[in-house]
Amino acid sequence: MGLKFIEAHKFDIDDFLDNSYFEKFLDTSSEWIEKRTGIFTRQFSNCGNDLMALDLAKKFKNPMQDLDLIICASFTSKRRMPSISSLVRDELGGNKHCLCLDINLACAGFAAGLIIAESYLDKGRRAYIFASEKISDYMDMTDRRTAILFGDGAGGVLVEKNDKLWETDIASFPHEDSLNLDENSFITMDGKKVYRFAVEEVSNSIRRLLNKNNLRGEDVDKLILHQANERIINQLIARLGINKNNSLQNLEKYGNTSAASIPLVIAENIDLFKDKEKVILSGFGAGLSLASILMEW
Amino acid sequence: MGLKFIEAHKFDIDDFLDNSYFEKFLDTSSEWIEKRTGIFTRQFSNCGNDLMALDLAKKFKNPMQDLDLIICASFTSKRRMPSISSLVRDELGGNKHCLCLDINLACAGFAAGLIIAESYLDKGRRAYIFASEKISDYMDMTDRRTAILFGDGAGGVLVEKNDKLWETDIASFPHEDSLNLDENSFITMDGKKVYRFAVEEVSNSIRRLLNKNNLRGEDVDKLILHQANERIINQLIARLGINKNNSLQNLEKYGNTSAASIPLVIAENIDLFKDKEKVILSGFGAGLSLASILMEW
Repeated sequence: MGLKFIEAHKFDIDDFLDNSYFEKFLDTSSEWIEKRTGIFTRQFSNCGNDLMALDLAKKFKNPMQDLDLIICASFTSKRRMPSISSLVRDELGGNKHCLCLDINLACAGFAAGLIIAESYLDKGRRAYIFASEKISDYMDMTDRRTAILFGDGAGGVLVEKNDKLWETDIASFPHEDSLNLDENSFITMDGKKVYRFAVEEVSNSIRRLLNKNNLRGEDVDKLILHQANERIINQLIARLGINKNNSLQNLEKYGNTSAASIPLVIAENIDLFKDKEKVILSGFGAGLSLASILMEW
Repeated sequence: MGLKFIEAHKFDIDDFLDNSYFEKFLDTSSEWIEKRTGIFTRQFSNCGNDLMALDLAKKFKNPMQDLDLIICASFTSKRRMPSISSLVRDELGGNKHCLCLDINLACAGFAAGLIIAESYLDKGRRAYIFASEKISDYMDMTDRRTAILFGDGAGGVLVEKNDKLWETDIASFPHEDSLNLDENSFITMDGKKVYRFAVEEVSNSIRRLLNKNNLRGEDVDKLILHQANERIINQLIARLGINKNNSLQNLEKYGNTSAASIPLVIAENIDLFKDKEKVILSGFGAGLSLASILMEW
């Protein structure tokens, strides 16, 4: 059993900051940032991720009143009660038997949300899965290793349980202080550890999915990787033998938006997906954790 | 399909504050608190809910290396990366394909975690579901309506998917500013709204579960309600016609520990449950949300 993607949208901030912004106060250059990360612009939100989520939810045209599940994936939520998923349900006037959950598995949170939804829903039933991240609240703007990487963003999908191909792969590894965030502090990252984990373990994960289904990299019609860093994405594409044109990306525009990166990519490209295409999604990050899905569109 | 409870434990703080503590700085009295809430003592933790969770996990004697799922339910987590469930997995040296999720549905979070686990696990597979709450970080000690109600706590259960009775009921209602917590602020509560919701809707929820299975209140062998307030618990027992002796409680000792209240009750009473007993669990609170389960032990 799998999931059909009915509709996808993104929250619009409409104010993109380019890399020259950081030249004013960091010992860095636009060229260096572009070359090292693949990021050209990012957005910083003026409102909290709860208001971003409410604005996003209003964009959906399909009726949201009959959902069985609403999941908000985020590691940056400041609203603790009611949960953001509950707020969204309240706003949508949703079905009273809808389960509302806020979940956190950092950058793998949205993919994990899809996996939970697929196991929870009965056939023909629907869920709204979204991610809303205001990472700028937790960025040390004086740390040139992290300030240039992240952006705020929110995206979501309305899905329905169907019986198409759905294969998942979850994996966790020792975190070894690779990527940390405690309250009232800033994100700290050991870039080398995260890079090594992503390149090695995400390729292993996607290979497991392909092998189980007798597929090869070249059979993948659409690849949506967590938008962490261009080097990681390029390495994964090369290792897996996936056609680079089939990798949907928006890193250059939004930077790393954690759990929001995958739904943002889906929302921007929803019209490109064709019936029966083989699609791979993979979220990865702090934990260290990854969640990958092979599905038929 | 349902869940078998293999093992349950609680985190020990070992320092109980009685109601006279509040007499020193609030216009209240021990007698008033006891009479209005049923709470005699509570615990306030010196460490964060992440360290509480790690300490709790170490108490389990069954091997935790082969779990498919670890869920931490909490609305008070300050650790954002890695998630607390990931930290726990790291500590346990767990199975690398274990999905680790931190979830928030306030006081209904632990029951929601069980429901997610039951849908995610294959038969014979295991999950570790726990709740860890340090509510004292978010209590306004000058507000006599809320300061006296909450306590810190953590409890968890190791469960295995079986094929016994498992019926669930989820419901959500407009929150109407009844129970709120945003970052850097304190819990605010409209006690009347929460009371009305709990008494009306939790009894409706449990009645739906009983009716679907042709059971009556007197058939319930063990009742574990979220430990919010003695008046709510007594009202629910009376409305449902459940034998008061079958309601397992610890409100008087711990106060309201949000998501942790149900696993704390289970951990303290695990030896009392007998094979084939009909057990009802119900978590309810901010959202407004509730999650109820009817299961056979």
